[in-house]
Amino acid sequence: MEIGTLTAGGSAGTRLGAHQPHLLPLADRVLEDTTPATLAGHDVVFLALPHGKSAELAAQLGDDTVVIDCGADHRLADPAAWERWYGGTHAGSWPYGLPELPGARDALRGAKRVAVPGCYPTAVSLAMAPAFAAGIVEPEVVVTAVTGTSGAGKSLKPHLLGAEVMGSLSAYGVGGVHRHTPEMVQNLSAAAGAAVSVSFTPVLAPLPRGILATCTARTQTSAAEAVEVYAKAYADEPFVHLLPEGSWPATASTLGANTVHLQVTVDPDAGRLVVVAAIDNLTKGTAGGAIQCMNLALGLSETSGLPIAGVAP
Amino acid sequence: MEIGTLTAGGSAGTRLGAHQPHLLPLADRVLEDTTPATLAGHDVVFLALPHGKSAELAAQLGDDTVVIDCGADHRLADPAAWERWYGGTHAGSWPYGLPELPGARDALRGAKRVAVPGCYPTAVSLAMAPAFAAGIVEPEVVVTAVTGTSGAGKSLKPHLLGAEVMGSLSAYGVGGVHRHTPEMVQNLSAAAGAAVSVSFTPVLAPLPRGILATCTARTQTSAAEAVEVYAKAYADEPFVHLLPEGSWPATASTLGANTVHLQVTVDPDAGRLVVVAAIDNLTKGTAGGAIQCMNLALGLSETSGLPIAGVAP
Amino acid sequence: MEIGTLTAGGSAGTRLGAHQPHLLPLADRVLEDTTPATLAGHDVVFLALPHGKSAELAAQLGDDTVVIDCGADHRLADPAAWERWYGGTHAGSWPYGLPELPGARDALRGAKRVAVPGCYPTAVSLAMAPAFAAGIVEPEVVVTAVTGTSGAGKSLKPHLLGAEVMGSLSAYGVGGVHRHTPEMVQNLSAAAGAAVSVSFTPVLAPLPRGILATCTARTQTSAAEAVEVYAKAYADEPFVHLLPEGSWPATASTLGANTVHLQVTVDPDAGRLVVVAAIDNLTKGTAGGAIQCMNLALGLSETSGLPIAGVAP
Amino acid sequence: MEIGTLTAGGSAGTRLGAHQPHLLPLADRVLEDTTPATLAGHDVVFLALPHGKSAELAAQLGDDTVVIDCGADHRLADPAAWERWYGGTHAGSWPYGLPELPGARDALRGAKRVAVPGCYPTAVSLAMAPAFAAGIVEPEVVVTAVTGTSGAGKSLKPHLLGAEVMGSLSAYGVGGVHRHTPEMVQNLSAAAGAAVSVSFTPVLAPLPRGILATCTARTQTSAAEAVEVYAKAYADEPFVHLLPEGSWPATASTLGANTVHLQVTVDPDAGRLVVVAAIDNLTKGTAGGAIQCMNLALGLSETSGLPIAGVAP
Repeated sequence: MEIGTLTAGGSAGTRLGAHQPHLLPLADRVLEDTTPATLAGHDVVFLALPHGKSAELAAQLGDDTVVIDCGADHRLADPAAWERWYGGTHAGSWPYGLPELPGARDALRGAKRVAVPGCYPTAVSLAMAPAFAAGIVEPEVVVTAVTGTSGAGKSLKPHLLGAEVMGSLSAYGVGGVHRHTPEMVQNLSAAAGAAVSVSFTPVLAPLPRGILATCTARTQTSAAEAVEVYAKAYADEPFVHLLPEGSWPATASTLGANTVHLQVTVDPDAGRLVVVAAIDNLTKGTAGGAIQCMNLALGLSETSGLPIAGVAP
Repeated sequence: MEIGTLTAGGSAGTRLGAHQPHLLPLADRVLEDTTPATLAGHDVVFLALPHGKSAELAAQLGDDTVVIDCGADHRLADPAAWERWYGGTHAGSWPYGLPELPGARDALRGAKRVAVPGCYPTAVSLAMAPAFAAGIVEPEVVVTAVTGTSGAGKSLKPHLLGAEVMGSLSAYGVGGVHRHTPEMVQNLSAAAGAAVSVSFTPVLAPLPRGILATCTARTQTSAAEAVEVYAKAYADEPFVHLLPEGSWPATASTLGANTVHLQVTVDPDAGRLVVVAAIDNLTKGTAGGAIQCMNLALGLSETSGLPIAGVAP
Repeated sequence: MEIGTLTAGGSAGTRLGAHQPHLLPLADRVLEDTTPATLAGHDVVFLALPHGKSAELAAQLGDDTVVIDCGADHRLADPAAWERWYGGTHAGSWPYGLPELPGARDALRGAKRVAVPGCYPTAVSLAMAPAFAAGIVEPEVVVTAVTGTSGAGKSLKPHLLGAEVMGSLSAYGVGGVHRHTPEMVQNLSAAAGAAVSVSFTPVLAPLPRGILATCTARTQTSAAEAVEVYAKAYADEPFVHLLPEGSWPATASTLGANTVHLQVTVDPDAGRLVVVAAIDNLTKGTAGGAIQCMNLALGLSETSGLPIAGVAP
Repeated sequence: MEIGTLTAGGSAGTRLGAHQPHLLPLADRVLEDTTPATLAGHDVVFLALPHGKSAELAAQLGDDTVVIDCGADHRLADPAAWERWYGGTHAGSWPYGLPELPGARDALRGAKRVAVPGCYPTAVSLAMAPAFAAGIVEPEVVVTAVTGTSGAGKSLKPHLLGAEVMGSLSAYGVGGVHRHTPEMVQNLSAAAGAAVSVSFTPVLAPLPRGILATCTARTQTSAAEAVEVYAKAYADEPFVHLLPEGSWPATASTLGANTVHLQVTVDPDAGRLVVVAAIDNLTKGTAGGAIQCMNLALGLSETSGLPIAGVAP
């Protein structure tokens, strides 16, 4: 693979190194405008645009170009859900870029268009899909997912300043209003074959990157049976790792890696299955997942170029 | 008030400043052994001992001494619960030191013995008790509480080292095995007047202190009604603060303060009440709560010596 | 003391709690515009304005009002230095608000105008002034001061975002270009009675607040003699604390306190005195120092309302 | 390359994943004892032992085995310096594993023994060697180097606990007593061709990994000339990167990469050259540098297997 044109919005015309000095090999490349002309002639194009902007651009790139959309435009299959959560007209859904979901991988092989999932839905869907596919939980999921602040991107808001973030934990988007919620509902309902509700609370914590999702649902299964279900579901997955008994996920173990670390148990007093999943929101949660999808779309080895050892401590 | 003898276990014989250099006015005081003799002659004694050690020591201090126990020995009323969670024989329960719980304050006025609650139960009980007292939720609570690492004290364990903690989020005590769970069950069941189950998952985050608890339960109430319930429940409480509409708690706002910052809403899609509570685990979560109880026990103003403005950012 | 009118620039008209939710007792107060009219009628006015704005406003407040300026306008005595570093016309110097400097306290007693020092000059001047006053070092100081990110205020710049700050250390203002440099030169030259040069490098570290300054200069003194000099210089100072032998300052010990923690030694191989000073840049480094000056200006006890125990861990 | 036997001291007999869960591909490998027998039969052996332990073990491995020592035993050429700083008998010096130092690379090509430098000496030596080699500074260097806490390893000490480290900056090993000092003196004296003194102050900051070294020395050179010297010195080095004018190093840009980010200027008022260097102490500062040396020792491409793009933010 060769990295082609790099484009930007407001930063077009500047060096990549001015924004991402860690990307030393590309630091002197100048960012171009994001237009059909600058994107033309590439085999694969990755988009990360504000919602509502991908469809038109993709249409102009032609059907021979593989377009991997890291934005939200084509993730939801239901036009009504799209319109409720994002407003405007639904531009249609593309194959959903989470190969580890039941049935998802086949649709991604050779695909010309891929909708990469949001970071929270990646963690939560992989955490709960096996339980729903196996029919061992009731269809009401409660999720609290704690995240580092890179999930908010580089938007300049006072509450994202270092001095505000460090030494503090805060909730946001509480009460089912986060736009990643319908993606979780869609994925888990598909796994369950029936409507699933998701109560989702995101929490902002003082670290640069990482998501730790704690997910629970009522169950009558034992812990041992639950572990069995998950071990089987992910036995052949290169990036999803059920931890050894007694070990619980830590996001640092996934830093820079395209992996999901999982553990599962049952709380018999509360009658609930509890699954904890850790990912790096910038790797498996976005950019790494996008590469994985590209590999499938191009018929390459799915794991090419994707680390599974994290950078820790 | 005058600070009397300072005692310790393994650190007896050393300067306080060797361990807590920030306590400048007391830094040169030498720690004595924790014995009935060194504790004798004080009006108030604060204990923070491993579980199973408070009862005998308190018995030797006499009934004229106010004993405020920051440990777990006397928090649970049910001997069976005690024995299940801690082992050994239950030493009996003392008035429970969370004055903001329904009916709790009266038992603390003039008390000679007080059992200060654990840090998690403080946050979770105050977050959910009003909903149960008002009968607006079903008796199954799901809690994920994120905490800074001071909650684990100064125990020398590899996973508590700075290099392991910073840049990482991890779950621990998952599946209903954390010893603070029965305290939450006890408090919320008392508020509800019926058995309540609590699914509790603690998460360790990279900050020194602070707990952010996200608590949900099924409800048919509206958000507006829920806000009304909480506004009424805490209208006269000096330390419990329901935030203005649209604001959500951040632990930094409670740093060094004896406050609880709360917000509540309803997720109509998931049919759940969501309450988020922030505290400083070392102030309202332990030491500040202990001072508040002492004030009540001695008949002083309940707010004496307790900040309500936090140290932020 | 009673807190009077609270004013702001761009945030005038909003609740204080929208910006500083930790200041619970004042959270519902609405910020007014910063004008002579809104500031009139107060005994003391604190200013924290962009440079060049204090003089005119102060002139309109009248000579009966004590004006404590947290900005830079009146810190430098030398008009040429002011014009070089800030541009524009020098508005004149006011009594310099660092009472612990040789001779400074008397000028602050009963003062109607006070220029509170910058945060870095507070730490560095107190770290090095005794050595110069005692004549034990050569007049070339090398300083590296590491700071938390609140020193940059709430300016919305990409490099101050949490995701950029956490997990990173970076230098800025390198090569003698930081505007706090001439303040250090002024203070240390005054202590030495001769021109002193200061090589100053600030470093940004991932914590909300705190400054740790490491300061060195050539010496022929022994470590024991140096300790003696510092012990004597600060023996009667309530806020400056020379740590016991073998202990080195940590900023957490000063969090929320108006203290300076100091330690000093000599590196015989390099022939240099090394002094390390820790402060909380928002307390002794600004707001606490301002209160201390107000106490002196009003003839109150200098330590009124100022903590000396920090909030740690 | 194939990873052979993994060995340990006290952790022998346990899974690697119990200590380093991020190393997923090796997590189930069991650690063996560190003995000549378990290490026999490998082409390359990496040692990271307490000082004084490498020589005897290396002797038993035979001359055909390349031994890369990450410990201190063979770094100092001067037996007297070794004995002063470490005690015991000097085991002799090995080729010093910092290829970017003047003349160092040739000694590493085909070497059978390599002494990998300490993390601080890596940053400081590369920061200052070009200035000394070019003769543009006086022979007294002042260094303050700020470091993340992984530099202290996994030793269980109270001051390294997360709750103590986060939110705090502290100095340690002040006054020329840190054992990395003589390594800096050795390297810079070699570059200068004359004795150089180094005043070194290390500072502990709240991040997992990274070193930012600020280094100054008296000069009469201009900033432009200094930049020229550094640009020339490192023009062909794949891992040492002089940043564009106006950019200063941040450790996050080197996270997980084998790079050194540098910038240099002159403070004309203070008459000093100031160089700032950033490295990842666990990559270029130890393990990455060790791989680089192995590549040279085996005659492989020097950059094999070593990232130059960092993991940020």
